[in-house]
Amino acid sequence: MTEILVITHGNLAKEMIKIVEDIVEEPVKATPVCFDLDLKQSDYTRKITDVLDAIDPGRQVIILTDLFGGTPSNITFPFVKKDKLEVITGLNLSMLLYLLTQSDDKSFQELCEGAKKAGKDAIVIAGQFLS
Amino acid sequence: MTEILVITHGNLAKEMIKIVEDIVEEPVKATPVCFDLDLKQSDYTRKITDVLDAIDPGRQVIILTDLFGGTPSNITFPFVKKDKLEVITGLNLSMLLYLLTQSDDKSFQELCEGAKKAGKDAIVIAGQFLS
Repeated sequence: MTEILVITHGNLAKEMIKIVEDIVEEPVKATPVCFDLDLKQSDYTRKITDVLDAIDPGRQVIILTDLFGGTPSNITFPFVKKDKLEVITGLNLSMLLYLLTQSDDKSFQELCEGAKKAGKDAIVIAGQFLS
Repeated sequence: MTEILVITHGNLAKEMIKIVEDIVEEPVKATPVCFDLDLKQSDYTRKITDVLDAIDPGRQVIILTDLFGGTPSNITFPFVKKDKLEVITGLNLSMLLYLLTQSDDKSFQELCEGAKKAGKDAIVIAGQFLS
């Protein structure tokens, strides 16, 4: 199974995982990593390294981050490794809900593309949809 | 100026507004509306009606919601009114940051389209971007 990390500013990661658990009505397998804005860049990197070191090296990892261009995204990019660890930016609830409700038969690439599509498709201007 | 409401499950709205304020280093003009999952639909509708009633009737309103198909989105759709009130679903931090940092010279339509674009453009698979 793919390991899911959610890395964000503030308490966003914890809050979003909690909401998904409330929606699906059971615990989900995702690890939140929350950063204070006043942390130094070296502290961010150490925190992420510690979390990644604790994961079974045989597992694939998808990291969701909150803001393209923000520190949680920038600091995780160097860890990207083809078919092993991927970072998807621009986290929203649909993306997270998708990833945490997939069966084990999807490939790593399908999961990444599916999460991206779920996130983008969820962004709708209601007036255009309803008219 | 356009009124921005952020309507979500749990404390997501408050948490996201707080993060944007930390990033831009000043207070922003957005109203969070947070819902417990155990509220009845009529309670949701009343809460939104109360918030909208408190807004100057001359103001345009953009409502950002967290999850297309979720209760906060579904309950706000009936309030959509062309050029007056719009709902954009699939909230992420980039969408909110965009809306809260625009000058007053953009039209209502430009703000809605810009928020949608900012949200979608922020969703990137890093491995594809970096390669």
